[in-house]
Amino acid sequence: MGLLSEGLTQLLIPLAALVGLAFALLQWFLVSRVKVSGSYGEGNGYKDKLIGEAEEGVDSLEVTTKVAEIQNAISIGATSFLFTQYRYLSIFVGVFSAIIFLFLGSVKGFSTKSEPCTYNTGNTCKPALANAFFTTIAFLLGALTSVLSGFFGMKIATYANARTTLEARRGVGKAFITAFRSGAVMGFLLAANGLLVLYITINLFKLYYGDDWEGLYESITGYGLGGSSMALFGRVGGGIYTKAADVGADLVGKVERNIPEDDPRNPAVIADNVGDNVGDIAGMGSDLFGSYAESSCAALFVASISSFGISHDYTAMSYPLIISSMGIVVCLITTLFATDLFEIKKVSEIEPSLKRQLLISTVLMTAGIAGVTFVALPSEFTLFSFGTNKAVKNWYLFFCVAIGLWAGLVIGYTTEYYTSNAYSPVQDVADSCRTGAATNVIFGLALGYKSVIIPVFAIAFAIYVSFSLAAMYGIAVAALGMLSTISTGLAIDAYGPISDNAGGIAEMAGMSHEIRERTDALDAAGNTTAAIGKGFAIGSAALVSLALFGAYVSRAGIETVDVLTPKVFIGLLVGAMLPYWFSAMTMKSVGSAALKMVEEVRRQFNTIPGLMEGTAKPDYATCVKISTDASLKEMIPPGALVMLTPLIAGTFFGVETLAGILAGSLVSGVQIAISASNTGGAWDNAKKYIEAGASEHAKSLGPKGSDPHKAAVIGDTIGDPLKDTSGPSLNILIKLMAVESLVFAPFFAAHGGLLFKWL
Amino acid sequence: MGLLSEGLTQLLIPLAALVGLAFALLQWFLVSRVKVSGSYGEGNGYKDKLIGEAEEGVDSLEVTTKVAEIQNAISIGATSFLFTQYRYLSIFVGVFSAIIFLFLGSVKGFSTKSEPCTYNTGNTCKPALANAFFTTIAFLLGALTSVLSGFFGMKIATYANARTTLEARRGVGKAFITAFRSGAVMGFLLAANGLLVLYITINLFKLYYGDDWEGLYESITGYGLGGSSMALFGRVGGGIYTKAADVGADLVGKVERNIPEDDPRNPAVIADNVGDNVGDIAGMGSDLFGSYAESSCAALFVASISSFGISHDYTAMSYPLIISSMGIVVCLITTLFATDLFEIKKVSEIEPSLKRQLLISTVLMTAGIAGVTFVALPSEFTLFSFGTNKAVKNWYLFFCVAIGLWAGLVIGYTTEYYTSNAYSPVQDVADSCRTGAATNVIFGLALGYKSVIIPVFAIAFAIYVSFSLAAMYGIAVAALGMLSTISTGLAIDAYGPISDNAGGIAEMAGMSHEIRERTDALDAAGNTTAAIGKGFAIGSAALVSLALFGAYVSRAGIETVDVLTPKVFIGLLVGAMLPYWFSAMTMKSVGSAALKMVEEVRRQFNTIPGLMEGTAKPDYATCVKISTDASLKEMIPPGALVMLTPLIAGTFFGVETLAGILAGSLVSGVQIAISASNTGGAWDNAKKYIEAGASEHAKSLGPKGSDPHKAAVIGDTIGDPLKDTSGPSLNILIKLMAVESLVFAPFFAAHGGLLFKWL
Repeated sequence: MGLLSEGLTQLLIPLAALVGLAFALLQWFLVSRVKVSGSYGEGNGYKDKLIGEAEEGVDSLEVTTKVAEIQNAISIGATSFLFTQYRYLSIFVGVFSAIIFLFLGSVKGFSTKSEPCTYNTGNTCKPALANAFFTTIAFLLGALTSVLSGFFGMKIATYANARTTLEARRGVGKAFITAFRSGAVMGFLLAANGLLVLYITINLFKLYYGDDWEGLYESITGYGLGGSSMALFGRVGGGIYTKAADVGADLVGKVERNIPEDDPRNPAVIADNVGDNVGDIAGMGSDLFGSYAESSCAALFVASISSFGISHDYTAMSYPLIISSMGIVVCLITTLFATDLFEIKKVSEIEPSLKRQLLISTVLMTAGIAGVTFVALPSEFTLFSFGTNKAVKNWYLFFCVAIGLWAGLVIGYTTEYYTSNAYSPVQDVADSCRTGAATNVIFGLALGYKSVIIPVFAIAFAIYVSFSLAAMYGIAVAALGMLSTISTGLAIDAYGPISDNAGGIAEMAGMSHEIRERTDALDAAGNTTAAIGKGFAIGSAALVSLALFGAYVSRAGIETVDVLTPKVFIGLLVGAMLPYWFSAMTMKSVGSAALKMVEEVRRQFNTIPGLMEGTAKPDYATCVKISTDASLKEMIPPGALVMLTPLIAGTFFGVETLAGILAGSLVSGVQIAISASNTGGAWDNAKKYIEAGASEHAKSLGPKGSDPHKAAVIGDTIGDPLKDTSGPSLNILIKLMAVESLVFAPFFAAHGGLLFKWL
Repeated sequence: MGLLSEGLTQLLIPLAALVGLAFALLQWFLVSRVKVSGSYGEGNGYKDKLIGEAEEGVDSLEVTTKVAEIQNAISIGATSFLFTQYRYLSIFVGVFSAIIFLFLGSVKGFSTKSEPCTYNTGNTCKPALANAFFTTIAFLLGALTSVLSGFFGMKIATYANARTTLEARRGVGKAFITAFRSGAVMGFLLAANGLLVLYITINLFKLYYGDDWEGLYESITGYGLGGSSMALFGRVGGGIYTKAADVGADLVGKVERNIPEDDPRNPAVIADNVGDNVGDIAGMGSDLFGSYAESSCAALFVASISSFGISHDYTAMSYPLIISSMGIVVCLITTLFATDLFEIKKVSEIEPSLKRQLLISTVLMTAGIAGVTFVALPSEFTLFSFGTNKAVKNWYLFFCVAIGLWAGLVIGYTTEYYTSNAYSPVQDVADSCRTGAATNVIFGLALGYKSVIIPVFAIAFAIYVSFSLAAMYGIAVAALGMLSTISTGLAIDAYGPISDNAGGIAEMAGMSHEIRERTDALDAAGNTTAAIGKGFAIGSAALVSLALFGAYVSRAGIETVDVLTPKVFIGLLVGAMLPYWFSAMTMKSVGSAALKMVEEVRRQFNTIPGLMEGTAKPDYATCVKISTDASLKEMIPPGALVMLTPLIAGTFFGVETLAGILAGSLVSGVQIAISASNTGGAWDNAKKYIEAGASEHAKSLGPKGSDPHKAAVIGDTIGDPLKDTSGPSLNILIKLMAVESLVFAPFFAAHGGLLFKWL
């Protein structure tokens, strides 16, 4: 038994979640003090300073009114898209709930009789039908929580973007804090909400399951499946939405009409800004929530068949939840370093400050994990490992969690090195624009490929150590370790699109060049942090998938996954192909939707008199509709590919082939996801590097409109679907197929492999 | 025992090889009847017709002199590059021979005592030191044969290019036959030469080994390693050479100076044409020779530990060689269909005629395999399969070979569908050029990803069936089946660069527009067949690697490669990353070398007066030197990555991790290789589609110089390193690591895994 009593555990976990929620609300309150309304400037004490400092000659009231209007349009667009998406998703959730219930219910022929337990031999467990029912409920809860995470994230982001713009008039530091706090609201809300719902669900399920922890934690895996399946559609649908609008707007606006980015004359500009919120914010929120839910579920499931699971040591069982609780506390302290302990005064301090967040949270969390491990876990116990039992000491687990955490940091910093324009890789890409778009693309692709090396070694090292120490449970808690600082990770990640939107609003509201420069500086740092966030997302996805894979293999009763058997090998080969198939679909979707958008934007420029002169308003709504329709229609085929593959493979080819597919898609998907994200991030920042012209080298490539700059814009446009649609969606592909396999494992083990049985 | 006696087998194999050689010489003789000399037109009976038909107003003697000059320059450039490359390679071969001898010699501490056999229990086998010595000899022979295959291919190609140009004046059909016959010379020379050297080597080695077939065929694997390691440097060095020149020439010539492709004023134009011969011809020749040698070695090694290997049934053992012999005969008949039985009269007949070659050879070979299988193999025998024995009937083997053969056809046709501008995928890519280079690249990448699906399913199906029927021997002979029509495959593959060069020569010699159109039509078909050839190369590489992997696993004494062990899993993950690392290196190399080339070409245009006006000659030699130096320097790091990975992994991490790496790089490399080749091929043909303007749709995108055409040129340039450098080199990466692991398996099994032993 560990030092922490069951009662205290029962108290501390929800307490940490509530503290996280309270902190999110506090940050939200602080952001809300920036007023966006016609009466801005009256009574908030900022007016005198503002006018005096940066905005001479601009009438404050007129600007704020315009800002409020734009914010409103973005918020309405985003909300309406998400609600439309949720209508579609509700159909999917309904159908898939039925599938889960029917497939799992059929495992023992819908019998209502209790069964002997699989692992806790000698005891009686609840009937398979009950597991089917509770898995379905957990699936619904996971889906709901995921949707809420995305939705609230979008709400706070659209609430914060205009406020960041207005604060940019008071200085870079103020704008930074507004954007960062808003990111923090999302980060803490998501982490706390995810933890709380999971905690409550477990406790409610326990009322029925009692001592049958096998069944309890098997059902809980539905929570991860629900979270991730919503994330899939969020990422894919949102990704297509945002990039169709972005690419379409850029191709006509920047390239053909030579008007700046986010120019209010561009009919697709609102759709573009809406897209940032539904894709990069709501989609990413759902994605990371999914990772979090899945790694918790994988760890809990593996723990339930360990010695402390079988002996019902509640505190030890709750170790994954306790790590997450500690994570909330650590991130809370970390956030204060950015918002209260230091102040950003110069543009050049933004990126270091964000990077420091990662380092601080990692160092603090390492201490936190040590504490948690020693109080929560018994000093020695055994873990189930593919048919054998493995004796483990509690400090092994400390190393497992810590190595996941630090591997995350290595991945984050590597991503930063390859995507920030402060280092030579991006500068080389920018330099290659001298000879045109072709060399830019060749160098960018090569950069993306190269950026895979260190993260893969980091992940491999983390896997080797944590697996050697504590088998699949080690991998699962390593994934949790990487995700334990999720609140900080999300805060710096969400900061990016918020700053991007802020810049767009400044441009659209006709604010001065200086303000735009400030928001651009925020945004450039945001591109890097977004890439770091994606690096984290994919790194953790790799660990989570492997943990889920391990849990699946355990649950399906497979003892070896031997590459030397043809069943497994063809699974491996086809699995490695799936990320390509999936990327082909999503990239083509973005391309086709962008073509439609281009036609519409061209049509408006050609047919609306006075549009280029700024005397007539474009028809924003039609562009929003094009993005909405395209993304809803186009998210179905890739979604179907991911959701149906495990079902088809498991049912017809059996558990071994499915294991091969999972392993193949994992090892192949990680590479494409990392390289796609980093290539896109590098192109974006190479373009910004030329535009900013901060060094002699950069000046020699610029200014905006020069041939190298045009080449850079082409690279940036190509990178859009890579970094914001296909790349990040691949995380979900690998995780979701694994969690789905885990949930359906009892069915596949009982009735799967029909094709080979027939032959 | 099979029906074929040992004596007859001993006769038929070399006979088939000699027939192949004779046929190659005959084709060469037919090509040589086209005269390229100042005296062209005198006495070959063509003159009257020529002048009458297409070349009015062009003085025949002047043109031929110019053509002869250009051909000479290309031939000298290519020969000098290859000789320089061979000087470097001879150092590598020397060092690596020493490594092979020392590593393998150390297995039993350089003891000269005979040992009990591993598989043929109870018997005595030759000492490990002898195996070390003969493996080294086989390595040297393989390297030499590979180099000769590449060199002769280059020689015949540079011999044929000018002749194709001159024949183009007599009509498309004549030019086609010249190019195709020259391809056939290369194809038959390579297949016959490979078979003959292997046959002689086996027979000579047998003089020493006598009844120790285990040792004999273990040593023979060195032949595959030698062939493939030369192919690596040939593909990588040649690929960098050709694409640095091509990209550099296009970026300044086509994009900046607006002069046509292959314009003699472009200083990089000779380097570009040399590149086609050293990269696409010599490199590819070495590559396919490597595949052929490796699949033969893998099949022979696996066979040597089967029941007929142990009972010394010579004919059955020689089954792999007999298949190749039959292949030569079948391809000989197939060739006649293109050169003698049908005549090409229209441009539109070129592609169907080439495609027909594939189909005819596949159908005929299916019958050939059936015959060979029933006469050569005993009706029932047992195969060694990872520690167990598997009973197999001879007709199982027929299915294994046939399925490999037909999978090759499926891959070839799929590749054609995705890269020919006769179908919608390439037309869609061309259409996306309307909105610029960015959408072109997005659509092109998506096309490449999508083109992976069917080939992977075809390979997976072939693997499943052949493995289920005859374990790893089934896979090895399936690979041989795919490669059995190698002469035809190479003929249609080499045809592409020859036509490409012919077009270049026409342009440089100032021949009429009409001639250029004819060679362009040949070339467009050539792009597709080159892509088909690459499809074959990667498909067969996948099967070959798997067969080698199986042989390695058997030789290293591993009985399962379990993904659920951390040693294997991290191998899998890191292995899947290697193709990315490798591609990053090769793409960056092409990019950097191209930048240097661009600078030199610009310098010449700016400093040589009268160059643009055509009154002064450019300095071709400097550009040739830039490509040569860059490719020789840049081929070392990727070469080292491939050659050192198995040695480091095996020595420090042991045989299981190495097995994981091989499986990972195989399943991941196949996908990138296919998608890179097809993306590049599609971009190239999308550009040609716009340029040719054959349909209403194509016309609406053109003509040359329009915005969509410029976007298409950018795509084409990006595709160059993808399709001709990094993509095809990946085949060799996966094969070479596997064959190297196989050769060093005895050492790794005896002394490997140092790191884990220390821990």
